[in-house]
Amino acid sequence: MRIVLDAMGGDLAPGPIVEGAVEAVRGEPGLTVVLVGDEVRVAAELAHYPDAPRDRLPVVHASEVIGMDEKPVEALRKKRDNSISKCWALMAAGEVGGIVSAGSTGAMVASALFNAKMFLPGVRRPGIAAIFPSHHGPVVIVDVGANMNARPEDLYQYGVMGAVYAEQILGVEKPHIGLLNVGSEETKGTELTRSTAALFRASQIANRFLGNVEGRDIYEGDARVVVCEGFVGNVLLKAGEGAVEFLFSELKQEIARLLPEIPEEAGGKIIASLRGLKRRYEYHEYGGGPLLGIRGSCIICHGSSDARAIKNALRVASTLATDQVNDQIIRELEAAPKIEEVAPPKAEGDSAQ
Amino acid sequence: MRIVLDAMGGDLAPGPIVEGAVEAVRGEPGLTVVLVGDEVRVAAELAHYPDAPRDRLPVVHASEVIGMDEKPVEALRKKRDNSISKCWALMAAGEVGGIVSAGSTGAMVASALFNAKMFLPGVRRPGIAAIFPSHHGPVVIVDVGANMNARPEDLYQYGVMGAVYAEQILGVEKPHIGLLNVGSEETKGTELTRSTAALFRASQIANRFLGNVEGRDIYEGDARVVVCEGFVGNVLLKAGEGAVEFLFSELKQEIARLLPEIPEEAGGKIIASLRGLKRRYEYHEYGGGPLLGIRGSCIICHGSSDARAIKNALRVASTLATDQVNDQIIRELEAAPKIEEVAPPKAEGDSAQ
Repeated sequence: MRIVLDAMGGDLAPGPIVEGAVEAVRGEPGLTVVLVGDEVRVAAELAHYPDAPRDRLPVVHASEVIGMDEKPVEALRKKRDNSISKCWALMAAGEVGGIVSAGSTGAMVASALFNAKMFLPGVRRPGIAAIFPSHHGPVVIVDVGANMNARPEDLYQYGVMGAVYAEQILGVEKPHIGLLNVGSEETKGTELTRSTAALFRASQIANRFLGNVEGRDIYEGDARVVVCEGFVGNVLLKAGEGAVEFLFSELKQEIARLLPEIPEEAGGKIIASLRGLKRRYEYHEYGGGPLLGIRGSCIICHGSSDARAIKNALRVASTLATDQVNDQIIRELEAAPKIEEVAPPKAEGDSAQ
Repeated sequence: MRIVLDAMGGDLAPGPIVEGAVEAVRGEPGLTVVLVGDEVRVAAELAHYPDAPRDRLPVVHASEVIGMDEKPVEALRKKRDNSISKCWALMAAGEVGGIVSAGSTGAMVASALFNAKMFLPGVRRPGIAAIFPSHHGPVVIVDVGANMNARPEDLYQYGVMGAVYAEQILGVEKPHIGLLNVGSEETKGTELTRSTAALFRASQIANRFLGNVEGRDIYEGDARVVVCEGFVGNVLLKAGEGAVEFLFSELKQEIARLLPEIPEEAGGKIIASLRGLKRRYEYHEYGGGPLLGIRGSCIICHGSSDARAIKNALRVASTLATDQVNDQIIRELEAAPKIEEVAPPKAEGDSAQ
């Protein structure tokens, strides 16, 4: 399997990005990672790993980088030789089976949209999935920011694609799908949520559709796939990260206050234990969010990704591109009901419960 | 000050609701709490407090209760003698200065909307505020579920009202206002966010408008007021509660595993310390969310409110109704720019960054 990696994408690039690639190819003998970026800087990083299998780490030069704060579409137009566009060009040419970047999410998605022939048959707009923790294991949330103008058909497709991902990549058996909403009754929410629910109820996966789930329910994990429009999902994802960071920083202060009062050995154990807990809920483990609805695979990593995150993302990209995930998605989307044929319930009231 | 309390509202009503009222009037000599609910059940609860100042705890009978899972508008129509409608009738008649309920949020808001003469002059749609923690102290988020069809003018008004609330009730000096969005550039987000930003920038509080804030930024606390539409705010609020509960439950398991390995005294200190931390981030302290934009005051409490939460809500309702908060809101809303006069920036790209 050949995966292309945006070596210049990410707050810390190219150092830990290249390191992640080296670790990934060392760990998987069948994997080749094509590094796209400034060839001098990438070569300088590769020089730190003299025993790396260089034949499986080819470099493709790209002279420009899209910054995290640039306007994606404008930047893609102005910087013709940027690393993200070059990665997608290799995808479009069929030279690689998957793409990984920790660079600008906006540029990654915009670039994907420019390459509409890269969409899976039947997919109107790809969506980004993120993995949340829950009492019953990982929960897939789609879309967390690819699509700011979602239609009911899009949310339905995110449900189908998220479920296949949960099943094939995360090993969840027959995952239930929930619709993020402001209350449990079917009349709650917006025109979008009501029409989406009607689509699920009319579909062949109706028996796996749980109906509305509220923000709180995500962590219960009854629904292992939760669909929402990109604005809400993006806020949810970033606020969740913020909440975890905030709580752990408060916890750290609390423990620091306590340490002088308890034996040193006990203190050490507590700190180690909390670090372990924090590590479990950081984003590194799942290797970034897949852009679902693309031929092959596309993983968009967090901007602050380290070598571990990149290594995991390359592993997931490689699995996704080989594991018939897309074949199953295409089959299931073919069986989707038509929006014209379903009638959503009427709105009742106009506020959350 | 007279405040009306929905004695039947909340998962645990009327027990802890009545208890909260008793504690509130005991603590504030100038406060009268009108208890609305089943007079036999309320009297039975009051009998547990023989030394309570009964002259400041009058009871008004209401034979019906709106359940948390009922459709609000339908339930308000069918159950003519429900406690929430009776509370609002007392508000509309000017017999009380504020209203508190831990019952159905939907019914509370719908009831408020039925009483449009209760809106402050200039307010199109009231919004519910919730208080989040941050590194710089409490952050006011508006709207968390009153309005599922927000216009830019609404979000602007939420900013103005949230800022007055933060200043006068939470003691934040000249709070900065942020607009919840999916990226920091002004072109990000939706038509709603772009037009809202344009309104703030054209207003007399432009110097206190920080622009876009992302989900993660809430916990930084640079913006002490964050505005968003009700769907997003509701998901954010409930997901935040879910995340805190989830993390503390994981933490509890982690500590339980550790306890056999550390001295008993140290273990006890750790547990006490974590309980204190959890308590700080529960919703009880701030006594529920105010519905901003109403004459007098209205506090909507969490369904699982206990006596402490109700007591605090009554205290806030009493302060809000007396503290010239509404006078300041009315003055500031009069100076708002007209939506027709501001031009939002054009969209660029269509995804989160």
